[in-house]
Amino acid sequence: MTQDEVLAVFGSNVQKERQSKEFSQETLAEMAELDRTYISSMERGKRNVSLVNIVKISNALSISPSKLFEGIREIDG
Amino acid sequence: MTQDEVLAVFGSNVQKERQSKEFSQETLAEMAELDRTYISSMERGKRNVSLVNIVKISNALSISPSKLFEGIREIDG
Repeated sequence: MTQDEVLAVFGSNVQKERQSKEFSQETLAEMAELDRTYISSMERGKRNVSLVNIVKISNALSISPSKLFEGIREIDG
Repeated sequence: MTQDEVLAVFGSNVQKERQSKEFSQETLAEMAELDRTYISSMERGKRNVSLVNIVKISNALSISPSKLFEGIREIDG
């Protein structure tokens, strides 16, 4: 798996969890104390999200951070 | 939990897993393709580690990323 694919899978996991809770990007951004454009670019796989933001987002979605790592495999060299 | 406490718990989880495998910091750095000083400062809770580096480190330790989130709870405001 490439680094870009890691970001893409993570972003789509966030989107799936957000949508399953019927939160808008604005609502998730507010709950996670992040900017809406950050949420948007992260869901499109454009952000190498930091540890603290991973915890903030999983808190806001009331899930364990591990849910957001589902489908992420070894990074190729 | 504060953001600094998140970094500290994450760092100590990495150290525990590394030591359980009897890897030196140099060995883990090499396997994760990261700098040894990065591993050292991260284990001391001084790094807000990125998503890609979390995956690289968990790959190198042959564990799921969720192991490194153990003990990390809600971030206070």
